[in-house]
Amino acid sequence: MRKYLLTPGPTYIPSLIREVLAKEIIHHRTQEFRDILKEVHQNLKKIFCTENPVIIFTSSGTGAMEAAVSNFLSYKGKVIVINGGKFGQRWKEIAQSYKLEIVEYKFNWGEVPSLEVLDELLKKNKDVKAIFTTLCETSTGTVYDIKEIASLVKDKDILLVVDAISGLGQDELLTDEWGVDVVVGASQKGLMLPPGLSFISVSPKAERFMNSSDLPKYYFDLKKALKSYFNNDTPFTPSVSLIIALKIALEMMMKEGIKQRWKKFSFLASATRNAALSLGLTLFSKRPSNSVTAINVPSGIKAGDLVKLLRKKYKISIAQGQAEFKDRIFRIAHMGAIDRDDLTVCFSFLEKSLEELGYKNFEKGISSKIIQETPDV
Amino acid sequence: MRKYLLTPGPTYIPSLIREVLAKEIIHHRTQEFRDILKEVHQNLKKIFCTENPVIIFTSSGTGAMEAAVSNFLSYKGKVIVINGGKFGQRWKEIAQSYKLEIVEYKFNWGEVPSLEVLDELLKKNKDVKAIFTTLCETSTGTVYDIKEIASLVKDKDILLVVDAISGLGQDELLTDEWGVDVVVGASQKGLMLPPGLSFISVSPKAERFMNSSDLPKYYFDLKKALKSYFNNDTPFTPSVSLIIALKIALEMMMKEGIKQRWKKFSFLASATRNAALSLGLTLFSKRPSNSVTAINVPSGIKAGDLVKLLRKKYKISIAQGQAEFKDRIFRIAHMGAIDRDDLTVCFSFLEKSLEELGYKNFEKGISSKIIQETPDV
Repeated sequence: MRKYLLTPGPTYIPSLIREVLAKEIIHHRTQEFRDILKEVHQNLKKIFCTENPVIIFTSSGTGAMEAAVSNFLSYKGKVIVINGGKFGQRWKEIAQSYKLEIVEYKFNWGEVPSLEVLDELLKKNKDVKAIFTTLCETSTGTVYDIKEIASLVKDKDILLVVDAISGLGQDELLTDEWGVDVVVGASQKGLMLPPGLSFISVSPKAERFMNSSDLPKYYFDLKKALKSYFNNDTPFTPSVSLIIALKIALEMMMKEGIKQRWKKFSFLASATRNAALSLGLTLFSKRPSNSVTAINVPSGIKAGDLVKLLRKKYKISIAQGQAEFKDRIFRIAHMGAIDRDDLTVCFSFLEKSLEELGYKNFEKGISSKIIQETPDV
Repeated sequence: MRKYLLTPGPTYIPSLIREVLAKEIIHHRTQEFRDILKEVHQNLKKIFCTENPVIIFTSSGTGAMEAAVSNFLSYKGKVIVINGGKFGQRWKEIAQSYKLEIVEYKFNWGEVPSLEVLDELLKKNKDVKAIFTTLCETSTGTVYDIKEIASLVKDKDILLVVDAISGLGQDELLTDEWGVDVVVGASQKGLMLPPGLSFISVSPKAERFMNSSDLPKYYFDLKKALKSYFNNDTPFTPSVSLIIALKIALEMMMKEGIKQRWKKFSFLASATRNAALSLGLTLFSKRPSNSVTAINVPSGIKAGDLVKLLRKKYKISIAQGQAEFKDRIFRIAHMGAIDRDDLTVCFSFLEKSLEELGYKNFEKGISSKIIQETPDV
């Protein structure tokens, strides 16, 4: 029985990519590897919608998030942190670790930041150096309006840093066009790879901030990384096998093109939402993302029980909520290589599992039928 | 034609391990993965010869080196850095990044630290908090006498931190018995894996230092990592596929046992040295390690040319020197899965390549014959 992995990372990895991981390893200080890095660097730019360098770190996504704090800020620098979920909270924690002065814009999970509030915060805090925010807040399945936020700081001496770890590849993000300075990504979501690589794009404005930053860093030092980048090299031994697999993953993505992928996932996400609604369920997010859908569990059912049942009995992995929403929501990812068929199977067993847990208030088969009718793009 | 990878990392990866990398990925917040981590944690202790926790980071070895600085020291803390090569130099650079007060004990590449000098430095600097040193200095193929160094600090309130990235698995290291507080390792050397994981062992004394450290850290925060460790979990999405491969690699190593492996590599290293000497070559290191052998190139030949010829014409990858020794030495690794056969092939083509570059002052076939006669352990 095949296992279905519809968690928001790691996600299903196509066999074409997995096979590459089993090949004999090559040395990283060779022309062969430099050629691979060169192609990867070019294609990463297209996924990140930027002409700026996209640096690869061997780390989880959180490593690149830390790099975005330690490389661009200085001691006691003031930053705005947009916190509407677990990953906004992570920005806050990283900024705290570096003793930055934090203006926290906190709101309820599932909601989105208000432009008016942000504008007000910027007016009250003229010395703000950067805004840290999230494209898709994975914990709530919410996509923020980054274009709108970017419009506030585009012409100011303020950096906009976006955690796009789960959103990249599914949720629209026009980095350069909107004026986003720093975008953070990771390998195990839209890029269809195992976890182990993180990414960070660096705008010229961000490079300027970098040159005056006084926070300590070594492994995640972007100055060193950028110097190597332009030689298609890395300062430290990189995760060679994952980078070779990344080359394949990017080639697969390039065949479709990033805009086509955004379109595909907007259809899949919409189908997922409609499928959930067809079961009489409600959505958790006020502005649902195209990467992951958060659904409220029917009253009387614990999300943990639902997720366990699906995984143990039907080999379908989805995620429950996080923190205080652990047992109140469940989350279905539609990112990377996850397709209509995966979601069809997922919803057909979701129906079964809901029934087994006592929730029967729906027409059998309706949700997977809705998924199957997603337009083929 | 098979490629031979005898560089000091990444090294040859057995197919049993590579095949695992191609399997479907699993989610990390599951009992299945916790069981894997549990076994990995147990076996890592045996490789590290310690009863203390060995934390796994998703990063290059340098990441764990940085963790060893940022987690145990405090602002302006005084440390001794033993610098006899590129990786001693790296300790210094990391300590500088964190603005520590550095007492540098620098000596010529290929040499070893003197106990008397170290003792003197400790007497002169009563406020030293830690000594940073290296088991096998990869850049020079030199193994330091860690037991001796440990004897100086064992009963003092000073941490001994050892970079064992290239030495681990080949060069003897009795972490607990000798009184080493912190040992840093990485996946792509003796552990026979692709690069992408790093390791750090933490003694109770080190934990005490950790609790008063005030340097900023987040991704490499050992407090967070230790908390997860005891639940067989990780604070951030780990490199799942590499950890599953690590399970297999450790099982392979356990079948032999660490002491048996030390013995095997002492024979292979000795054979490598004798093979080099049989060609009329000289060794670079005053105290050669069992992990990598550094050999002086004959006058008139550039190490870079020799290494390139071997790689391009004969598919044998060895390493040239680093920094000012770039063209003066070449280095052959005997670590991880590298065996007598690999070294036999390596030396047979090394002879050919030396001849082609004009060095003919040896009896043909002598060096690979010496390798072949290595006792089978």
